[in-house]
Amino acid sequence: METLSENACFGGVQGVYSHASTACACDMTFGLFLPAEAQDGPVPVLWYLSGLTCTHENAMVKAGAQCWAAEHGIALVFPDTSPRGDAVADDEAFDLGQGAGFYVNATQAPWAPHFQMYDYITRELSTVIFNNFAIDETRESITGHSMGGHGALTIAMTHPGRFASVSAFSPICHPTKSDWGRKQLSAYLGTDESKWAEYDATLLMQDKGFDGPVLIDMGTTDQFLDLLMPEALAKAMATRRQQAIFRMQPGYDHSYFFVSTFMEDHIAFHAEALYGLNT
Amino acid sequence: METLSENACFGGVQGVYSHASTACACDMTFGLFLPAEAQDGPVPVLWYLSGLTCTHENAMVKAGAQCWAAEHGIALVFPDTSPRGDAVADDEAFDLGQGAGFYVNATQAPWAPHFQMYDYITRELSTVIFNNFAIDETRESITGHSMGGHGALTIAMTHPGRFASVSAFSPICHPTKSDWGRKQLSAYLGTDESKWAEYDATLLMQDKGFDGPVLIDMGTTDQFLDLLMPEALAKAMATRRQQAIFRMQPGYDHSYFFVSTFMEDHIAFHAEALYGLNT
Repeated sequence: METLSENACFGGVQGVYSHASTACACDMTFGLFLPAEAQDGPVPVLWYLSGLTCTHENAMVKAGAQCWAAEHGIALVFPDTSPRGDAVADDEAFDLGQGAGFYVNATQAPWAPHFQMYDYITRELSTVIFNNFAIDETRESITGHSMGGHGALTIAMTHPGRFASVSAFSPICHPTKSDWGRKQLSAYLGTDESKWAEYDATLLMQDKGFDGPVLIDMGTTDQFLDLLMPEALAKAMATRRQQAIFRMQPGYDHSYFFVSTFMEDHIAFHAEALYGLNT
Repeated sequence: METLSENACFGGVQGVYSHASTACACDMTFGLFLPAEAQDGPVPVLWYLSGLTCTHENAMVKAGAQCWAAEHGIALVFPDTSPRGDAVADDEAFDLGQGAGFYVNATQAPWAPHFQMYDYITRELSTVIFNNFAIDETRESITGHSMGGHGALTIAMTHPGRFASVSAFSPICHPTKSDWGRKQLSAYLGTDESKWAEYDATLLMQDKGFDGPVLIDMGTTDQFLDLLMPEALAKAMATRRQQAIFRMQPGYDHSYFFVSTFMEDHIAFHAEALYGLNT
């Protein structure tokens, strides 16, 4: 693992690191915020999965999350959204290939050799951060924005018992029925739609639910509402009687101005779940 | 004036606007955050002047300032740092020409026709925002980062009675004696150094001081300390018995991770001065 930068930030350290990834078969870069409390021992961690076109950097500089993570003594991990590099397959479209990994394990050419973001996040990068930093591996929560909200919800529901809580900002809620999903799932997983279900938050909510609290924020004037399909997830959560808070925020759009506005709430929500685990 | 974007943000609106500038003889773009309170009447305003290479956008997306401005009901203005465009003079160096206006009125070729940032900020953009938005022109404060900290301090001290308070993050403190200053002041103002004094915060502090509270934050591991020369300004403030808080923050550098960490303090500092004026 190589340290690319470390900056003092809200009493802690915002670092950027790279490492040779086995899952993605390329070098991967991630951001990690450690609060001051990490100097004294392991701290809980909140994963933040970013959206289409993002790298590890967008949320790290635009979401204003370190302020609240510092307040609650929680680490933040900002993974990249896909494998990268000249040797990695790509597509001209912004919503397929590099910057658009969709947090799946691809099975189809040309994507399969590198696009293993589900394993990368849930196994490989987890091990890297637990082995190299003062992070308490028994206290994880997960959040994300847009494609990353989809990633957070699907990863949380397919790892029962692992995450204390899950939240999402404007998540892609029902990718098997949306143009933000069908295109990518068919490219990465092939045309057999039965293989897509484990990567659809609405279907997972119908089938499994989440064994902890869920918080979703969505802007009422989000320009991508038709693609995000929040109504599908809202219905599935209510039908299941899932412990959850689902908020439509009046006048907000899909941008980081929206994300940063509600970041304080999300981190406080996760802190309550993370600190509640062992108390 | 043209609206380029408006996003809901912390209960208010983060807008980006452009207008034809007379002072700079080109189109200029600026960011403006209006808190929810502006829907009911004029609100106080805090100017944020950015540093070298920045546009109106950097602080708007990276400083985390809207959160605290919303809390205190204060507007934020994010001007650009120079005139821009193919017709505007430029230099290959990052620290001269476009992106590096230094908040002066240039008198020398090829800069004089467009590089009138001092007048642009203090007269023209002021008029634009007072005429077009619910901003109380009797309640202004000013801050900035690096080159923008220099701009904030020099503009505040050369407009006695106008600004309720001034603060700066890692400001260029003594440009007439630093390589961040001598190069630009000689290019923009010519080699007669007597013309430079009105753009040097340390010399202005020695000569005039500021008729209100001053707050300066500087990182002890700022990579540009030798160019910023905080010791010169600290000495001048103490010698003058200026009402001021001068903080060297341990372990912090020159980045927006530093700026965002102390933004809450700065906006609370300005809010106290702005609301104290008429109460």
